Amino acid sequence: MKFVLAPDSFKESMTAKEVADSMEKGLKRIFPNCDIVKVPMADGGEGTVQSLVDATAGKIIQVTVTGPHHHPVQAQLGILGDGKTAVIEMASASGICHILPKDRNPLFTTSFGTGELITHALDNGVSKIILGLGGSATNDGGQGMACALGVKFLDNNGQSVPLGGGFLHKIAHIDMSNIDSRLTQTEFLVACDVTNPLIGPEGASAIFGPQKGATTEMVDILDKNLTLYAEKIKATLGRDIAKVAGGGAAGGLGAALVAFADARLQKGIDIVIEHTELAKKIIGADIVFTGEGRIDFQTKFGKTPYGVAQVTKDISPLIPVIALAGCVGDQIEDLYDENFTAIFSILRRVCSQEEALEQGQADITATMENIARLLNPFMRRT
Amino acid sequence: MKFVLAPDSFKESMTAKEVADSMEKGLKRIFPNCDIVKVPMADGGEGTVQSLVDATAGKIIQVTVTGPHHHPVQAQLGILGDGKTAVIEMASASGICHILPKDRNPLFTTSFGTGELITHALDNGVSKIILGLGGSATNDGGQGMACALGVKFLDNNGQSVPLGGGFLHKIAHIDMSNIDSRLTQTEFLVACDVTNPLIGPEGASAIFGPQKGATTEMVDILDKNLTLYAEKIKATLGRDIAKVAGGGAAGGLGAALVAFADARLQKGIDIVIEHTELAKKIIGADIVFTGEGRIDFQTKFGKTPYGVAQVTKDISPLIPVIALAGCVGDQIEDLYDENFTAIFSILRRVCSQEEALEQGQADITATMENIARLLNPFMRRT
Repeated sequence: MKFVLAPDSFKESMTAKEVADSMEKGLKRIFPNCDIVKVPMADGGEGTVQSLVDATAGKIIQVTVTGPHHHPVQAQLGILGDGKTAVIEMASASGICHILPKDRNPLFTTSFGTGELITHALDNGVSKIILGLGGSATNDGGQGMACALGVKFLDNNGQSVPLGGGFLHKIAHIDMSNIDSRLTQTEFLVACDVTNPLIGPEGASAIFGPQKGATTEMVDILDKNLTLYAEKIKATLGRDIAKVAGGGAAGGLGAALVAFADARLQKGIDIVIEHTELAKKIIGADIVFTGEGRIDFQTKFGKTPYGVAQVTKDISPLIPVIALAGCVGDQIEDLYDENFTAIFSILRRVCSQEEALEQGQADITATMENIARLLNPFMRRT
Repeated sequence: MKFVLAPDSFKESMTAKEVADSMEKGLKRIFPNCDIVKVPMADGGEGTVQSLVDATAGKIIQVTVTGPHHHPVQAQLGILGDGKTAVIEMASASGICHILPKDRNPLFTTSFGTGELITHALDNGVSKIILGLGGSATNDGGQGMACALGVKFLDNNGQSVPLGGGFLHKIAHIDMSNIDSRLTQTEFLVACDVTNPLIGPEGASAIFGPQKGATTEMVDILDKNLTLYAEKIKATLGRDIAKVAGGGAAGGLGAALVAFADARLQKGIDIVIEHTELAKKIIGADIVFTGEGRIDFQTKFGKTPYGVAQVTKDISPLIPVIALAGCVGDQIEDLYDENFTAIFSILRRVCSQEEALEQGQADITATMENIARLLNPFMRRT
């Protein structure tokens, strides 16, 4: 018997690898000789570095970079097991998590640290960089990142324009002469689940600015500045990033990666599925198990369990997909039509959120053991 | 496909019938044409009347009787579908639930109302009475019940001895001449899961007295009184009830039922299994489902799911037994050796106890639907 365990992390409770390990423990109690393939998953959001590193037996590197508030922060990048691919979460360097709510101001925050992370990745000799864009604190159109990679944004006096979305209107000239030459030999894959463009009413500033601390006035300034910024980039590079779908992700970082690094934007879960070689691992499976801290009506919009269910369906619609969650929301009926066979909560009794998070691994193991016990008499007969 | 649904009630949330109905709803979503046999169960404790009435399509009769505190209370008795069997929970008439903690005093509380319930049952023409003994407020050796049935307890002056465990030492003579003559034609089956005798250090007063409000001094008085009471009964009826296993249940009501009604004491779950004809209904089942509000290490000491698992094993150890619970305790591993195939909690997310109780039926249905979905691909192959 072959089981594939392809869960996401359970946020604040377990990494995806810990979930898979706990699942395995429960299954092995009943099927000690079964073949288990563990594939820690992610969807391009928080935990993607950890999961891809775990799934490929890679490594995590800690580095100090410039935070979104221009002060040093501790960040990380992952090098996958192939040694050729780096994975970065922009939030690790330039995330909103680094700034207290009262200090959030997207006129000043910068994506410079994300550029430094890219430099660190290049220093490690990789030929491909995967970037996750969720959780940014910035609205600078990726200006900071580009700066860190050698691009110079100059004003009318030939002086460097300060970092931050509030100063982009001062850019008179973009000097590409010092851009890191390794960028052209590097494939950039950007995990991006939104389709918002860089500018306009559905753009970075209007939609994501407020959650980064932008007032209505700031949103106006930021959007105008990004418009001028896009025009300068078009004039310099011949590339129109104003309307690229997903260009508005991470305060315009998505657009900048397209402009300066010729990046491809792709759904996060698809990138993870590809780089974990999940499809290949599912071939021949009797059951695929997945899971996430929460499974609800949003799951079908590109969350990990949804992606796992779709890949499994492509391999064979006869392979059951069983999902586990700490919290199973209402209105999950749609998922049964999307190749989810069954969805179980791992909770075993009434408890607080803290207790639930703490006993997550034991609950996963117990639930998997019971599922295995339930299936055991029927699988034996087949 | 045939499924037997034999759950207990989920206390404070659902009757056993409601549990079975909710289970059915979940199964039918996936197996619309399956054969479902619902057998609401109980273990002789609270809910036994309701379950046996529901399981046999009987009826419940409301009556006013004397409460344990000598005031009127509303009580109920069940008449099973055969019309020949009554089922009574002594707590309905003489339970501790009728007295506020501050007013509890087993020197005075009486089982008189239980005798009145028996009379009501006899008036309904039954030939068998099933009595559940849990939750009593009394320590009167069943004196009150016997009185209600026509037995006279007289003192040295030929006067009636007052009702209550504190007055039993005054009994000089027991007059059986007016006892309800129908008792001799009626079979009494007493659901009793304890083995405590009427008197002594493991007896009714010592073990159960304190939870009914007895102080250390009161326990002494009550135990001495029950000793004298047993001697008088032996002298009158030639029956020694002092050491009958289970005679100490319900403050000695078990002993009195043996003495005055020639009752048989039996485990509650066994009585329910017999009168629901559960074994017969399990024959040919593909899966048996059971459940209770809580499943933990105590379940194996005669709780409903345990009884259901054992009966199923007797029919065929190949029939899986799946148990559902609101709360699954730790240390349930033993149950897997006792013919439990799998044990699932019905909870779907972190919530309060109140919410869990309120959404019990929806949670049962959702859990059963998922179990059915999980099994569906494997059952089809068999």
